[in-house]
Amino acid sequence: MPTPNPQHPARFSEWSFVSGSGRGGWGRILSPPVAGGSVEAPHPTWYFDTTMSRAVTMEKVVNLAKRRGFAFQSSEIYGGLASCWDYGPVGVELKRNVKDAWWREMVLTRRDIVGIDCAILMHPRVWEASGHVAGFTDPLVDCKKCKERFRADKLQDVWCPEKPSKHPGECGGELTEARQFNLMFKTFMGPVEDTASVVFMRPETAQGIFVNFLNVANASRQRIPFGIAQIGKSFRNEITPGNFLFRTREFEQMEMEFFVKPGDDERWFEYWKAERLAWYRRNGIRAENLRLRDHGADELAHYAKGCVDVEYQFPFGWSELEGIANRTDFDLKRHAEYSSKDLSYFDEETRERFVPYVIEPAAGADRATLAFLVDAYDEDEAEGETRVVLRFHPRLAPVKAAVFPLLRKDGQPEKAHEIHALLSRHFPVQYDQAGSIGRRYRRQDEIGTPFGITVDHETMRDNTVTLRDRDTMQQERLPVDRLVDELKRRIEV
Amino acid sequence: MPTPNPQHPARFSEWSFVSGSGRGGWGRILSPPVAGGSVEAPHPTWYFDTTMSRAVTMEKVVNLAKRRGFAFQSSEIYGGLASCWDYGPVGVELKRNVKDAWWREMVLTRRDIVGIDCAILMHPRVWEASGHVAGFTDPLVDCKKCKERFRADKLQDVWCPEKPSKHPGECGGELTEARQFNLMFKTFMGPVEDTASVVFMRPETAQGIFVNFLNVANASRQRIPFGIAQIGKSFRNEITPGNFLFRTREFEQMEMEFFVKPGDDERWFEYWKAERLAWYRRNGIRAENLRLRDHGADELAHYAKGCVDVEYQFPFGWSELEGIANRTDFDLKRHAEYSSKDLSYFDEETRERFVPYVIEPAAGADRATLAFLVDAYDEDEAEGETRVVLRFHPRLAPVKAAVFPLLRKDGQPEKAHEIHALLSRHFPVQYDQAGSIGRRYRRQDEIGTPFGITVDHETMRDNTVTLRDRDTMQQERLPVDRLVDELKRRIEV
Repeated sequence: MPTPNPQHPARFSEWSFVSGSGRGGWGRILSPPVAGGSVEAPHPTWYFDTTMSRAVTMEKVVNLAKRRGFAFQSSEIYGGLASCWDYGPVGVELKRNVKDAWWREMVLTRRDIVGIDCAILMHPRVWEASGHVAGFTDPLVDCKKCKERFRADKLQDVWCPEKPSKHPGECGGELTEARQFNLMFKTFMGPVEDTASVVFMRPETAQGIFVNFLNVANASRQRIPFGIAQIGKSFRNEITPGNFLFRTREFEQMEMEFFVKPGDDERWFEYWKAERLAWYRRNGIRAENLRLRDHGADELAHYAKGCVDVEYQFPFGWSELEGIANRTDFDLKRHAEYSSKDLSYFDEETRERFVPYVIEPAAGADRATLAFLVDAYDEDEAEGETRVVLRFHPRLAPVKAAVFPLLRKDGQPEKAHEIHALLSRHFPVQYDQAGSIGRRYRRQDEIGTPFGITVDHETMRDNTVTLRDRDTMQQERLPVDRLVDELKRRIEV
Repeated sequence: MPTPNPQHPARFSEWSFVSGSGRGGWGRILSPPVAGGSVEAPHPTWYFDTTMSRAVTMEKVVNLAKRRGFAFQSSEIYGGLASCWDYGPVGVELKRNVKDAWWREMVLTRRDIVGIDCAILMHPRVWEASGHVAGFTDPLVDCKKCKERFRADKLQDVWCPEKPSKHPGECGGELTEARQFNLMFKTFMGPVEDTASVVFMRPETAQGIFVNFLNVANASRQRIPFGIAQIGKSFRNEITPGNFLFRTREFEQMEMEFFVKPGDDERWFEYWKAERLAWYRRNGIRAENLRLRDHGADELAHYAKGCVDVEYQFPFGWSELEGIANRTDFDLKRHAEYSSKDLSYFDEETRERFVPYVIEPAAGADRATLAFLVDAYDEDEAEGETRVVLRFHPRLAPVKAAVFPLLRKDGQPEKAHEIHALLSRHFPVQYDQAGSIGRRYRRQDEIGTPFGITVDHETMRDNTVTLRDRDTMQQERLPVDRLVDELKRRIEV
C-alpha cells in the first residue's frame, strides 16, 4: 500500500477520472482530472489565462526555436540529418531545467527512490530477455517500382517518391509481403565486425534498471516499496519520425521503475498516474491541454497488466508525453530466467520471498521539453505591436532575469554589470544594452525570461531598480540589495 | 586578448610553470603550478592533509564502488560487457555534481560562453570534414594461430589467449601486416542496411559545436571572443580499454570551444590552461596529484598548434584528465570547404572578416569523476578501527547530510524524520536508524557525506542537534532552526 510521504502525499484519491470517447477504437479517453488541494496553485506572475485561444502553431514554434536558439536541425550545414535536432543555448537550459525538475521531484526529495545512470551499450542477452530482439519490430513492405520501404500499417499516412506522388501501392508498383523490421540500432564492438560482436544501442533505459535491481537494492539498503530512476538517451530506428522534437530516432528518456509487493501494484499504479499528471501541472502546463488515456486490452504491451498515457494537446493533436505501465513481474522473471540469477526479494519483516511487481512511469525528456515550449507560447499586444512571449514557469525558464542599463552613459552600464555579476552567482542572467528598452524587453519575452531589471538615473541616486514582470508587463521599484532574495522567492514558487 | 571577467579574472599570470623531465621522450613535464591568490583557499573542514601517504589502490576503489553503489559493471548478471560501467545511486549523484560544477563555472556564471546539446548521430560528411573517417585509426595485426587482433603498437602490453599466455607474436603464431582500423562505431539509420545508410556514433562532441558555430553566434548574439560548451556521450571502439572508469568505449565529455581572433590565440591558450587546472583544485583535488604536461611537437594532432594535458596521479600512474588544445582555424575551414558554407566571422568594430581560431579545453566527465573519487579516498582510525572515508569537497559529495535518531524511541525517530524532510527540500539527505551510531557514521563516511546530524534526548528538550564533521569527527551543538543556513554555508564554500 502506498506509504504517505511528507513531501509527496498520495494524491490518487483527490483526482476524479471520467471516461470519454475512444481514439480509433483504442481504449477509453479520460478527461482532464480536476486538481485537488495538493496540487500547488499556480503562481500569479506566470500563470496567465487558461481560457485564451491558442495562437501557437508548430511552424511558429520551429521558427522561433531556430531564430532564438532553442533547437537547430542537426548537421544543418550539410543539409541536415533526418529527425535529429541539436539544442541551442536557450534550448539546452530549458531541457536541463525540465530534467532537473523531474530528478529533484522523483529522486532528490524522496526517500523511497534512488537514481542510476547506465551505459547505452549493454550485453546483447539483455535484449533477448526483454523481448526486443524477437518482438521490437514494425512490419515493412517494399515497392517493386520505386524500391522504397514503407510501414505496412501506415500506407495511408505516407507518400511514395513517384511523381505525381501517391500512397504506396497506388502508383502501379507492386508491394512485397510485409516483413518484420527490428527497430533497434545495432553496431559492432571490438575490432571484428561479425555476429559475435553485435551490440545494440538501447531502445529504452528501463532494462538497465532491471538488470541492476539486486546491485542497487544491496548498495542502497532500500526496502520494497522503492524505485530506481534514470535519465538517459535511447535510440529507435523509427521508419516515420517527425513533428520536430516529438518523434526522433535519438531521444532522451526519464524512466522510473517502482518495485512493489504483488497485490499492492494496482494502488501504486493509481498513485503514479495522479502523481505524474500533477508534475506537468506543477511545472506550468495548462489543465485543458493534459489528459490521461487508458490503453484498451488490445493495445496493451505483452508484459503489461495496465497502461495509461499522459497526453498533451499539441497543435498536431493529442499525443503521448509519458506512459505509465504496470509491468508486473515480467521483466525480473525474464532476466532471472536468461541470466540464471535469483532476482527475487526477501522481505525481512514478513519473512516472505517474492519477485516484485513494477510500476513504471516512463516520460520523454524531449517531448516534455516540446510540450513546455508549446504550452508557454503566446502572443499578445505591447506598444501597439504583436508580442511573442513564452510564459514558462520561472523554474523552467532558461534565463531567470535580464539586466539593462536604460542609457549607455552616466555610469548606468557599470552599475548594470555590477548587478549582473551579483545575480549570476545565483542563477542564469543576461545583460543587454543594445537598442531601445522596449526592444530589449521583447527579446527577453521571446525566450521567456520572467524578470527584467532596468538601471536608470534613479538607480544612480538611491540604488533602486525597476523590476518588470514578463506576463503582466507591470513594473515595480525595488532596492538592489533585496533583488537576490526577491527573485529567488519568485523563481522557486 | 583575454578580457577580464568579474567572475573569472584572467589567472594565467599568477601561475609559475617549471619544466621537468620528459615521459618516454614525449614533450616536457610541467611541475604542479603554485596557486596564486585567485584560487580559493580550501575550506578547513574538507581539505585534510596534502602530505599524508596515499592509502588508495584501484582495487580498494573498485570494491568500494560496487559495495556502496558508485559504479557497477554493466550487464553484470550476464557476465558483464567489457569496459562498460553503470553508475549506481551515489555514483550518479557524484557525476551529476561534477558535471554541474563544470557547467556552472563554464556556462552559467559567464557572459562569454553559451551551452549547446547536440545529437550523438550526425551527418556522415561531418566526419569526413573533421578527418575522422580517414585518420581516426589504430594499426592492428591478426595472429594467424589464435585469430585474435592486437594493436600493432602495443604488442608488449597485452597477452595472447594461448596457454601459457605470451605476448602476441611470441607464441609461434605469425602476425599479419598492420592494417588501419577505424575507431568510430558505425550503425545504420533507416530501414535499409547499406553503405548509403551508414552513420557514426560521434567520437567527440566538438564537431557538433563547429557545425553549429553560425547558428549559435546568430541566435545568441555573441561576439568574439566567445565560447560554446557541451556535455555529452561519445563513443570510441578502443582495442584496449581499461582501468575502471578511466578508459571506456562509451564515455561522457565536457568540451568547450572558445573562438578568438587569430593572433589572440596564444594568450587565450595560456588563460585556459590556468583556468582549467584551477577548476580541479577549486573542487578539491590535491595540488601534488595534478600537473600540466606539454605535448611535444611529434605528439601534436595534425590540427593543433599547441596542446597541453591536465594529468592526475592515479594509482596506475600519471594520466590525462583533460586536453587543452589550440586547434587554430582548422575545423571551421574544413567544414566551410566540405559544406560550401561561409563560416567566417565579421567583426563589427574593426570591420574585419576572419575565420576564428579555437582554444579547446576537452575534459572527460568519467575520468574527472574517477579522479575526484580516488583523490577523496582515505583511511584513518576511529574508535580503534580503520575508517574508510571519502573526503569529497562538500559541493561534490553525493549526499550532503544524514540524519540519525540516537534511539528508536522517545519521539526521536519522528523528530529526525521532521528534520530530514526540512533539509531535503534544499539538498540530498539520508535518514538512517539502523545499528549503533558509530556504525551509522561509518556508513556515511564511506560515501563521503560531509555532515552527520544526530537527534538525542537533549533535542527533545531544547530543539538542538549535534552536527558532526566527517573529516575532523568533531561534534558541535546547533539549534535546528539554524541548520539549513549553516549547512548551505558550509556546502557552498
